[in-house]
Amino acid sequence: MTRIHVDPARMLSDLDHLRTIGGQGTGVARRAFSDPDIAARKWLADQMQAAGLEVIVDPCGNLFGLPPGDGPCLLVGSHSDTQPLGGWLDGIWGVACGLELARAAQANGGPPFAVVSFQDEEGRFGRLTGSSVWTGQLSLAEADACLDEDALDDPITFATARERAKDIGPLGSVSPDRFTAYIEPHIEQGPVLDSAGEALGVVGAIVGVRQWSFRFEGEANHAGTTPMQLRRDALQGFASYSVALNEVFAPMVSERTVWTLGRIVVEPNANSIVPGAASFTVQIRDAEVSRLDAMAAAAHTLARQVASERGLILQATRGSPVEPVPMDPRLQHALEVAAETVAPGRWRSMPSGALHDASNVARVLPTAMLFAPSIGGISHNPNEDTRREDLCVALEALADAAGRLANTR
Amino acid sequence: MTRIHVDPARMLSDLDHLRTIGGQGTGVARRAFSDPDIAARKWLADQMQAAGLEVIVDPCGNLFGLPPGDGPCLLVGSHSDTQPLGGWLDGIWGVACGLELARAAQANGGPPFAVVSFQDEEGRFGRLTGSSVWTGQLSLAEADACLDEDALDDPITFATARERAKDIGPLGSVSPDRFTAYIEPHIEQGPVLDSAGEALGVVGAIVGVRQWSFRFEGEANHAGTTPMQLRRDALQGFASYSVALNEVFAPMVSERTVWTLGRIVVEPNANSIVPGAASFTVQIRDAEVSRLDAMAAAAHTLARQVASERGLILQATRGSPVEPVPMDPRLQHALEVAAETVAPGRWRSMPSGALHDASNVARVLPTAMLFAPSIGGISHNPNEDTRREDLCVALEALADAAGRLANTR
Repeated sequence: MTRIHVDPARMLSDLDHLRTIGGQGTGVARRAFSDPDIAARKWLADQMQAAGLEVIVDPCGNLFGLPPGDGPCLLVGSHSDTQPLGGWLDGIWGVACGLELARAAQANGGPPFAVVSFQDEEGRFGRLTGSSVWTGQLSLAEADACLDEDALDDPITFATARERAKDIGPLGSVSPDRFTAYIEPHIEQGPVLDSAGEALGVVGAIVGVRQWSFRFEGEANHAGTTPMQLRRDALQGFASYSVALNEVFAPMVSERTVWTLGRIVVEPNANSIVPGAASFTVQIRDAEVSRLDAMAAAAHTLARQVASERGLILQATRGSPVEPVPMDPRLQHALEVAAETVAPGRWRSMPSGALHDASNVARVLPTAMLFAPSIGGISHNPNEDTRREDLCVALEALADAAGRLANTR
Repeated sequence: MTRIHVDPARMLSDLDHLRTIGGQGTGVARRAFSDPDIAARKWLADQMQAAGLEVIVDPCGNLFGLPPGDGPCLLVGSHSDTQPLGGWLDGIWGVACGLELARAAQANGGPPFAVVSFQDEEGRFGRLTGSSVWTGQLSLAEADACLDEDALDDPITFATARERAKDIGPLGSVSPDRFTAYIEPHIEQGPVLDSAGEALGVVGAIVGVRQWSFRFEGEANHAGTTPMQLRRDALQGFASYSVALNEVFAPMVSERTVWTLGRIVVEPNANSIVPGAASFTVQIRDAEVSRLDAMAAAAHTLARQVASERGLILQATRGSPVEPVPMDPRLQHALEVAAETVAPGRWRSMPSGALHDASNVARVLPTAMLFAPSIGGISHNPNEDTRREDLCVALEALADAAGRLANTR
């Protein structure tokens, strides 16, 4: 294997600087194509150039730093845009890892690496826009019609927003064919590693999602004058469904399956009126298609059963399914060996419960992800944080794996 | 007993006319002190005057029709204001009964009766304003400070609204001492009589109310990245509480006890976020204080237990208790005898689950209520309705009871 001498302190220094671009308190506001987003991308482009990489910005605003020559190389990165007010590491840490890896390799004559910051991973325009277009999941024309979800009363289109791509650096196009594989380092955004006191997670798959929107319709009535036995109370229907669903799911799930009833709207939602309607969502996430489909079917069957027992009318709307995305076994293996090398016994293989640019890139390139712990699992929040030593350990593991993978495909 | 020859057709004709004042589709919009409310009260005042009654409007806009002379008499009535958009009978039917009874007695030389339409029973200013002041539950100064709850962005005070009282008829004051008792005929506003095919309900008590506002606070987390065992899901807490509460209450309740979880607000209420907080109300209504208090205590104990089991923080706020109001036994008995006379086997004794002006008047006068069936139990809705023959039967029963009670106290 090739050893790549990364400098963790330099990566931390980059992150500390980037934190000031769009910084708000402990958080960062760098919405895709906002002034701070463009400024951060320009600063990254400058660092790439200084490291001897060629900067290319594609029509979506995805920023690439490419090593000299046309030879195939590993692509490392993530995204540098944030939620409207996000944390200081979500996305940008993966880009900083890619930058440090490519810079170290250039400086020391190591194997070439490319770095990327995809645009609008956080969905200002409704999805992981930059990587969706780059991987052909979405045409540029379709993306151009997408509206700014932050300002739905006076939205601009993606077409208008991406005019600013030219402010970042030289425009061009970059084909996925140029790369041997993609590795995305990212904070976990969940509590698993932190609560176990572990330093690293090697992602086995990005989970798939099944979702239902259910509506129980009963009858709104005066809470004083309507006897219990004559009620058709939609919120009682929800409560009973929610408790029973846990029992139905218990024998079907793995330790890592999650399901969430995250949203409920009750009508008319007044202290003295028996609830006439309850609309709620059931979301199921797992890495196995067969489990997802069985659980989605069971959730629907139970909703019909509860509605029928309680004289409620059920409306059921199935959300668009998101399929699980398995990570590339060879890349996973390299990351696992690297993790055991730099943090023996303090890493695990785990699914990613959140979507990432890697979900898209896996369609066109062998892809893997490396997680660093999120303190308390806090995510999409200014309080998001990761211990600096954990960020350094993860960079070392990435460099170790990249060294193992370099010159092989 | 004295027989009072009421004319049900004349009462129906009054109701048909009153329905046009503020009529909207099948419903009526006669908010306290609105133009249609003032117009309806003026029309009622005219009918009272034509029937030989003296019209007095008190400072709150309560409209009285008093028989000649100073002798004690029975007071019959209810209210003629409505919800923002209510039904054609809620309140006004009781006033029409009182008018017809007083009118018939005047015309035929029967015993004297007085009629009343209390103001703002439907709480534009937050409570049963007119009868609260008339019975001394609320001072006029306190009432004057109450704000219009229909227009909280630019509210007027009750003091401003009641300047219109003078447009109804001659201002004056009327002491409760003038009356021997109060009977309020009212539609049931619930489905009990209608679903049993019965024509009349004699109210035994107006139920009391206990209410809790609970808030379960857990932790909002990403629904993809947070394992089930590390969640503190506030909405799961609510669902489990709601189901368990039914089990806890089962051995404590009577057939007529009701409890309602009518309102829930979840934060942040998003499909992909584990609910961080759930605020909801528990309302209990029953005619017995001991049962109300035991159920309220059990509801609180269970909330603490569920919160503790699930690592949630509980905030509990007790609502102002409303005490049950028993109806006067002598008046009840007269109504029961009358009900059995005009509708043998087709009436029942029952609690009132809703508040009424009678709740206030019972503090100062022997008080009773007579219910007519509400079709399908529909209330506070333009579709509220009662069969015309049921309205007539109830008027006959009222007249029968009033004849039995006249000249006694």
